[in-house]
Amino acid sequence: MERHPVEIQIEKADRAIVAEEFDTLLDIYAEDAVLVIEPGRIVRGKAGIRKAFEAIAAYFRHGLQVRQNGMEILESGDIALVHANTVLSAPNLPETERKAVYVFNRNSDGTWLCVIDNSYGSGIVAESSGA
Amino acid sequence: MERHPVEIQIEKADRAIVAEEFDTLLDIYAEDAVLVIEPGRIVRGKAGIRKAFEAIAAYFRHGLQVRQNGMEILESGDIALVHANTVLSAPNLPETERKAVYVFNRNSDGTWLCVIDNSYGSGIVAESSGA
Repeated sequence: MERHPVEIQIEKADRAIVAEEFDTLLDIYAEDAVLVIEPGRIVRGKAGIRKAFEAIAAYFRHGLQVRQNGMEILESGDIALVHANTVLSAPNLPETERKAVYVFNRNSDGTWLCVIDNSYGSGIVAESSGA
Repeated sequence: MERHPVEIQIEKADRAIVAEEFDTLLDIYAEDAVLVIEPGRIVRGKAGIRKAFEAIAAYFRHGLQVRQNGMEILESGDIALVHANTVLSAPNLPETERKAVYVFNRNSDGTWLCVIDNSYGSGIVAESSGA
């Protein structure tokens, strides 16, 4: 089966994160993309996303590994929703699987760019206080 | 704090599901919207989505209740990603919470419409066979 172009973009991003090739990594994001750094903390726009990934690389002692352990893509028009089992590890991080969610948007030249990057998935939701 | 228009749309959808007012419910979906009926099974387009909700209403003996127990909305341009703790119950369904994911798109007249409705969230992802 032919691979979805979004899957190829994510693979490119994962390789760029591991290699710390931030120019290549930022190519995959839309100008006004949003990255969830941790629950309750987001950054918006390429400059901020680059700084966040530089800080993440340093925090994980320049040894972060990323791979996807299963993925589903739901597409409607120029929007694609990705659910991925994203596996992270580093010298100071035991292998950890996150139920990540990514949203991509196909731009006018046909390229799929990441507009929302939430590796924490539903982990960002607090339960209603009144419930 | 002012409520996000997407949150208001979801509340309207929940009320319409409970009341089985399918015209109102379908107003919230884009023409080419995708609904996950169950993992591995989707339906695309308003006619199919209406049929699915009619079947769901019958399956749950016309007693389905829906509410959101916490929600986070991440927005980039005209796209909004919603993570919601969606609570379902019915005469034949004990209260069940799903980590739901919805994607909305703001159309040219400023209305936010649901383009992807995945109440199963990351539950639709199978692990890689080789992992």
